Amino acid sequence: MIHDKLPQIWYGADYNPDQWPEETWAEDMRLMRLAHVNVATLPVFSWALLQPAEDRYEFAWLDRILGLLADNGVYACLATSTAAQPAWLSLRFPDVLPTGWDGLKRRHGGRVNFCPSSPNYRRYSSALAEELALRYQDHPTLVAWHIANEYGNHCYCELCAEGFRQWLKERHGSLDALNEAWNNNFWSHRFYAWQEIEPPMAIGERGNSPMLLDYDRFQNQAILECYLGEYRAIKAITPEVAITTNFMSQFKPLNYAAWAPYLDVVSFDSYPRPDLPMSDVAFNHEQMRGLKDGQPFMLMEQTPSQTNWMPRNPLKRPGVMRLQSYQAVAHGADTVMFFQWRRARGGPEKMHGAIVDHVGHEHTRVFQEVQELGAELESLGDTLLDSRQEARVALLFDWENWWAIDYSSGPSADLNYIGLCKRYYHALWQANIAVDVVRPEAHLEGYDLVLAPMLYMVRPGVADHLKTYVRQGGSLLVSFLSGLVDENDMATLEGYPGELRELLGIWVEEFDPLLKEETRGVVMREPWGRLQGDYRAGVLCDLLHLEGAVARATFGESFYAGRPALTVNEYGQGKALYVAADVEDAMLRDLLLTLCDERDIAPALEVPDGVEVTQRIKEGRGYTFVLNHSGEEQTLRLPKGCRDLLSGQALEGEVRLAAHDVWILEGLPA
Amino acid sequence: MIHDKLPQIWYGADYNPDQWPEETWAEDMRLMRLAHVNVATLPVFSWALLQPAEDRYEFAWLDRILGLLADNGVYACLATSTAAQPAWLSLRFPDVLPTGWDGLKRRHGGRVNFCPSSPNYRRYSSALAEELALRYQDHPTLVAWHIANEYGNHCYCELCAEGFRQWLKERHGSLDALNEAWNNNFWSHRFYAWQEIEPPMAIGERGNSPMLLDYDRFQNQAILECYLGEYRAIKAITPEVAITTNFMSQFKPLNYAAWAPYLDVVSFDSYPRPDLPMSDVAFNHEQMRGLKDGQPFMLMEQTPSQTNWMPRNPLKRPGVMRLQSYQAVAHGADTVMFFQWRRARGGPEKMHGAIVDHVGHEHTRVFQEVQELGAELESLGDTLLDSRQEARVALLFDWENWWAIDYSSGPSADLNYIGLCKRYYHALWQANIAVDVVRPEAHLEGYDLVLAPMLYMVRPGVADHLKTYVRQGGSLLVSFLSGLVDENDMATLEGYPGELRELLGIWVEEFDPLLKEETRGVVMREPWGRLQGDYRAGVLCDLLHLEGAVARATFGESFYAGRPALTVNEYGQGKALYVAADVEDAMLRDLLLTLCDERDIAPALEVPDGVEVTQRIKEGRGYTFVLNHSGEEQTLRLPKGCRDLLSGQALEGEVRLAAHDVWILEGLPA
Amino acid sequence: MIHDKLPQIWYGADYNPDQWPEETWAEDMRLMRLAHVNVATLPVFSWALLQPAEDRYEFAWLDRILGLLADNGVYACLATSTAAQPAWLSLRFPDVLPTGWDGLKRRHGGRVNFCPSSPNYRRYSSALAEELALRYQDHPTLVAWHIANEYGNHCYCELCAEGFRQWLKERHGSLDALNEAWNNNFWSHRFYAWQEIEPPMAIGERGNSPMLLDYDRFQNQAILECYLGEYRAIKAITPEVAITTNFMSQFKPLNYAAWAPYLDVVSFDSYPRPDLPMSDVAFNHEQMRGLKDGQPFMLMEQTPSQTNWMPRNPLKRPGVMRLQSYQAVAHGADTVMFFQWRRARGGPEKMHGAIVDHVGHEHTRVFQEVQELGAELESLGDTLLDSRQEARVALLFDWENWWAIDYSSGPSADLNYIGLCKRYYHALWQANIAVDVVRPEAHLEGYDLVLAPMLYMVRPGVADHLKTYVRQGGSLLVSFLSGLVDENDMATLEGYPGELRELLGIWVEEFDPLLKEETRGVVMREPWGRLQGDYRAGVLCDLLHLEGAVARATFGESFYAGRPALTVNEYGQGKALYVAADVEDAMLRDLLLTLCDERDIAPALEVPDGVEVTQRIKEGRGYTFVLNHSGEEQTLRLPKGCRDLLSGQALEGEVRLAAHDVWILEGLPA
Repeated sequence: MIHDKLPQIWYGADYNPDQWPEETWAEDMRLMRLAHVNVATLPVFSWALLQPAEDRYEFAWLDRILGLLADNGVYACLATSTAAQPAWLSLRFPDVLPTGWDGLKRRHGGRVNFCPSSPNYRRYSSALAEELALRYQDHPTLVAWHIANEYGNHCYCELCAEGFRQWLKERHGSLDALNEAWNNNFWSHRFYAWQEIEPPMAIGERGNSPMLLDYDRFQNQAILECYLGEYRAIKAITPEVAITTNFMSQFKPLNYAAWAPYLDVVSFDSYPRPDLPMSDVAFNHEQMRGLKDGQPFMLMEQTPSQTNWMPRNPLKRPGVMRLQSYQAVAHGADTVMFFQWRRARGGPEKMHGAIVDHVGHEHTRVFQEVQELGAELESLGDTLLDSRQEARVALLFDWENWWAIDYSSGPSADLNYIGLCKRYYHALWQANIAVDVVRPEAHLEGYDLVLAPMLYMVRPGVADHLKTYVRQGGSLLVSFLSGLVDENDMATLEGYPGELRELLGIWVEEFDPLLKEETRGVVMREPWGRLQGDYRAGVLCDLLHLEGAVARATFGESFYAGRPALTVNEYGQGKALYVAADVEDAMLRDLLLTLCDERDIAPALEVPDGVEVTQRIKEGRGYTFVLNHSGEEQTLRLPKGCRDLLSGQALEGEVRLAAHDVWILEGLPA
Repeated sequence: MIHDKLPQIWYGADYNPDQWPEETWAEDMRLMRLAHVNVATLPVFSWALLQPAEDRYEFAWLDRILGLLADNGVYACLATSTAAQPAWLSLRFPDVLPTGWDGLKRRHGGRVNFCPSSPNYRRYSSALAEELALRYQDHPTLVAWHIANEYGNHCYCELCAEGFRQWLKERHGSLDALNEAWNNNFWSHRFYAWQEIEPPMAIGERGNSPMLLDYDRFQNQAILECYLGEYRAIKAITPEVAITTNFMSQFKPLNYAAWAPYLDVVSFDSYPRPDLPMSDVAFNHEQMRGLKDGQPFMLMEQTPSQTNWMPRNPLKRPGVMRLQSYQAVAHGADTVMFFQWRRARGGPEKMHGAIVDHVGHEHTRVFQEVQELGAELESLGDTLLDSRQEARVALLFDWENWWAIDYSSGPSADLNYIGLCKRYYHALWQANIAVDVVRPEAHLEGYDLVLAPMLYMVRPGVADHLKTYVRQGGSLLVSFLSGLVDENDMATLEGYPGELRELLGIWVEEFDPLLKEETRGVVMREPWGRLQGDYRAGVLCDLLHLEGAVARATFGESFYAGRPALTVNEYGQGKALYVAADVEDAMLRDLLLTLCDERDIAPALEVPDGVEVTQRIKEGRGYTFVLNHSGEEQTLRLPKGCRDLLSGQALEGEVRLAAHDVWILEGLPA
Repeated sequence: MIHDKLPQIWYGADYNPDQWPEETWAEDMRLMRLAHVNVATLPVFSWALLQPAEDRYEFAWLDRILGLLADNGVYACLATSTAAQPAWLSLRFPDVLPTGWDGLKRRHGGRVNFCPSSPNYRRYSSALAEELALRYQDHPTLVAWHIANEYGNHCYCELCAEGFRQWLKERHGSLDALNEAWNNNFWSHRFYAWQEIEPPMAIGERGNSPMLLDYDRFQNQAILECYLGEYRAIKAITPEVAITTNFMSQFKPLNYAAWAPYLDVVSFDSYPRPDLPMSDVAFNHEQMRGLKDGQPFMLMEQTPSQTNWMPRNPLKRPGVMRLQSYQAVAHGADTVMFFQWRRARGGPEKMHGAIVDHVGHEHTRVFQEVQELGAELESLGDTLLDSRQEARVALLFDWENWWAIDYSSGPSADLNYIGLCKRYYHALWQANIAVDVVRPEAHLEGYDLVLAPMLYMVRPGVADHLKTYVRQGGSLLVSFLSGLVDENDMATLEGYPGELRELLGIWVEEFDPLLKEETRGVVMREPWGRLQGDYRAGVLCDLLHLEGAVARATFGESFYAGRPALTVNEYGQGKALYVAADVEDAMLRDLLLTLCDERDIAPALEVPDGVEVTQRIKEGRGYTFVLNHSGEEQTLRLPKGCRDLLSGQALEGEVRLAAHDVWILEGLPA
């Protein structure tokens, strides 16, 4: 439970009362009560108002609004407002403004526009967080802290250059070691003095992957330090209140896995793209949940209606906001929160949806849907809180691997790490098989099946970790382009897939990137489980040699026709499989379900296509979420003894689930 | 009449004798006489030659060439040459060079490459204009002044920053008022000192629409000041000679409507894109004519043959240059002028067509067409001069609205203000219904029908103005995405379409942007005039409530099937219609012609498709232009008593109009 | 023969031992012997290692590795390592780093990242070259010098500005002459002081073609000076050893034709794009061979397997590396060399193929193919060395013309000089007609047919040169868009095609660029040789008048239907043809083969499609290369007396040539 003051699913929104005259505030309170809102996130962007000058804070207005919230039974997720510094700070201390990848110093403006190495940004942001904590540590509304907002700007200034050098000294120890780790004799890149090292930049070094990787690591750390400055200041004052900052699922500039230990609870902002399948959103939830080993997370932001920043921002159809809210809960969210309470009048987000629209009253479709969902969630009380999902399949996802693949010059511009992970995930999601998304270093004991799509970079210890997992009986599936490099993007000299070669029982001699639209046939040598006949593969094909593994499928074309395309290697008690090309979705589905069949991994409930099923478990009881994404009414067969927690109705036999509707079933086995 | 020295349609070209040896000048005179040229625009780009150094002017060569023109009966549209400063000025006074949106200071080069706030640019450009006026005030050739050329460069330097702050003080009065107007509490943008305000830039504040709008207004004003510096210097010396600068129709960096009061006559450069319909050109003419309430304008530049700066620059087919020249006259031009007289040997425009080609003689197709047209125009004398078009339909067009729509983040990247205006216009142009293009604040009394496509921004007074117009009996058609914001891009809190809500009798609760290629059906509830059956709509659909208006059509699909898509509200003596989506051209045509039918608005003549008809009226007599754009011969039926002014022939009954041919008919009712 | 120490086809690779521990070196030697490698290019990128500090060189490691090479019978193409300076040099001397087209000073990093005008770059690079020459002048391995690597970076700094001004003074003599040559009265560009001239830049003058052309010439010269600094230093010490630098075929920043006189032997890097026909590669070979009048060149780099820097980098199929190696030899290469020996572990090229892969041993497909080819080439001894190709057709190619066409604003963005040259070439390549690619100023006496596609710029003397060629009996084919400008991109005033007008017997009055996808019919007036019926043409059509020439084909459409599209002009003993549009490949083929038929130009051997035939001649004996690019086995008919040099087999009558296989036939007439 995030805070015992509020033992129910948190329901609320970003709230920016400072953008509105005080007359509006009373109306806000009336509407919040009406909407069953129990938490407000504030003040997210009020630094300029909270600190009008270097030596002066202004908290009176915040006192008033927090007082109003307290009076109206609304709790506060207190934000530190440090994602956008005041103009005076940028102008008074030039170190605050960052320098871009283009080498140009930025001017004040926008948001998240500061240098993460800036001593003055760090000093002033921590000071503000401390002031807020001191002032509101005992405020009755306080239930959580929200530091800054959507961190993520990389900087390339002289301060960062100096910070980078220090960071490199710590990481590599000596210049010789660094020159070795970065292969610096390539292109005459050897350094003879630390001072010679500058940040990579569009106008300088821009293609040297080991340096780029280290710079990303350094920036990730520098930004984390900004967060930690505030975190420590607050923690010292309110040790018992959970602290978070809001993530954005697959956000490349930050390695959230490295951040997660420093968040008391993970929170994130969910803005599904209208053109992507719902498995895309589900993947995000799994990934956020996986950051802290399955601990429930906060859905910090979603739009009740529409976004404004996509090229086209369609409305969520009636029922879809509710459906997506329950989908988040189904995958581990203990909060359902929105951006934002009241639609801003002006500025870049005035076209972004909100609970209260510009028209200002409750008589809108959107408000009514929010209100109805609020009542429903309220009725759930603490039933679902702290329940957990239990998956037997894990998918390995790694930020540094993502960076490294994208920085690699060659072999193919069509490589898409995130896309491949999502396609592997989608194959199981469609079958309602629960999947955890975890780091390669995560504990794997509990899993029957582990998927490692494009595990290009194998950091120290990971290969042994996977070997132990398989040796002890696990099934591991690894894809093409795995095991190629170490943490510095140095290629293995042991023969691809390097440290995974023995485990997989293969040697990949070459890989053949295909031209755009080119494909190759993949032929099953004989039917295996659900796999049979021919499939297609694209992007890249490995030319491999069996070294103990058995070929289940072979390529059907090109000069490597007949060579292995899918291999299985018995290893210890388990087995390690290798998919030697980017095979089509149908083959992924048949392959992954075959592996699940072997382990008797099955969904909690058999349902028609377009219906998602997932389960949260608490104290041995299963809560089975049934989510109808299909856009049409669906007929399901339920076993005896099911009850829908939302409607309170008993359900069994053939039952109809309306379009966009949701059940939370009790009575199914956990 | 622009100048009574030259009481006929002006016919001529930009003339750059300084690019040629003096031997060529005599030949130019011979050829000008041959071509019936009566005016030359010069010197457009001769500052470096006119002022070789800070303290020295060189007018002798210009004296000579003006003398030659005088001797040969050619008048001068005297240009001030200030669109491209000499290199010595840029280097001597660094304030002259501008800074780009990217924050980088520009180097000398190109043209229109100066900071509009630069004191030295302003000082030296005005001084040159004054010198020219003093020297040539009594020159027999002088018939008009042409200041600079195609103004339009925005600058982001420190001088502009300071100018912006001053301009903001005047506009907003106080920082508090500015913070309020710009909604500066959003993203912590509140300013505490004027000095904190910097120009928006790619490397700074780049998404804050109220600031962007004010910066565009400021730059528009700063550039206008450059013009006015020259204007005032000249006006003081030759008060009776008309002054202009050449516009470029829909040119985004400048609000020509704000400039028009300071031009004695509007002039513009017409370069039809070969892939667009001729209504596109017609729209430009209407828009330029509308800038000064229908006063005849100057066609300052067109190419006799081809351009060079488009991706592909096809030739104008034989007859097309003549046809497009008369189209300009048909829509209000009192001049037919070209860029340029003689094709430049070198530089960026050497591939741009000219009357005299590189080969240098008159034995070319292009010269001959120019010569024939010159003779023909000469024969018209002053018949058409000062005649006016009389339209019963007005289309509202507004630069600031254009800027604001394009700056808005959301709801859809497919919004296209200019495109929508042109599609509304096209529907009537096809039917040869005359349309004026005017500002929202223009006098509307004379119009039966006013069209307001995407009137997103409603400035103070505009809503009342439109209400008065409708109350007194007018018909007003407003489209989706109207009435959303005020002049600072602040959203209305009154319920969309804000100040237009009562007038239109509707409340738009939400809008639903469609995905690329998505459409929705629009169904007429029952036939209405030419409207019947089903149509399609795209881009964005409004979900609206009737508040007095009646629905004529409804959406046929999505969760808002059955909700109004076209509404009519009786208001006072008139009515106000609302089109709730981006409906297809066929529906626009049927709708607009139905509204015309209701008011008995009909073309001056019924003609086949591809033939344009428009009318200029002088002293009660109508001159009906019949322009065959179809590329094929067409057969028309003319009433008795028609006479073609060009051929002198009487025409009646079934008559054939050759491809690309033109009539100017007398005898039809005005 | 490049060096008499090594009288056979050189076979080897770029070798970077400094990227590897010394333990690896012995293994390298074993593998080189195994692969029949006889030459290694090194050290290409070791400046930082060779000169760790301003005052210190480190040659010991290089001594050791060269000693190893000597011991193992491998010769050295000694590289000067100056393409990437050490970081300390960039930081110690800021003049070393260049400024980009964007006006931004570059930071250290990457490669070829220096200012070519930098005194310190020049000083230190020449000094290193001299040190190397002094140290290794008598080394037994030394057979050639390889200066820097793939030169080509343009710079826009103040040093270059000053150098440009000096260069302009020399070229133009006076400011007046420069103002005249650049047509500087256009847009007020007249200069009054040399100091006013700055380099063209994105943030300054960017569209003035005469300046852009002169700047390219100046930069080409400045970069050449860097090369010459090293060249002279080395030449003084080892006058008898050939010096080269590696070219990149059609590389726009450098005019290789201007460089060629300063190379003792031309070398180049060949990386065929997998999506282009093999004629594209053949064209590159012809072009490189043509740079020094047919003298054999060095194939300095090719990949044995795959590249890494293309969007997709497919493997060379088995046999294709051998096939492409022989294709290079077939067109004049006396070396077959690779990039690189051992695949780098890290850095931007770690995914680039190499003879020795990351796995490090010889048991790979790629190594084995390299090894087999090595043995085969070794068996050829010096048979082919110094043999030459003899072509009766020449195609004129000119770098400055390429620059000028691309800088021209108009008439069409679809103009593609390189593409058109390659299409003309392809038409003859398909028929196995030998073609030389030469400069317009080249000796043309030996040719029966000269092709001049898009000879837009006609430099002084070229027109007379072509007239003499035709007058003495040659056939010349000129395409549309020829003869338009002089060397300063100033348009001719003599009527297009200017100086070629009399020779071609035509006057081009106008040209009509077509819209995208538009075409026009071209109709043969009567069959002529292989030409008959209708063809299509695109991009641009000339409207021309016959002035002595005869029309063989006319346009079939548009207002110029019936006007000449293909003309022939008898001139002296020869004839000059003009193709007035971008005609389709089928017409090019029929036209060019008709012209060959007229002159009895025929291939050395008739073969099926997809088989390339070319001939090298030495001491009167012909070596006929037969290269099967078709991907399938082909059946050929050979005359009696043929013998395949590679297999040693006699071949005659119907013989099968395997897919990707090659013959070098003796016994066919030279």
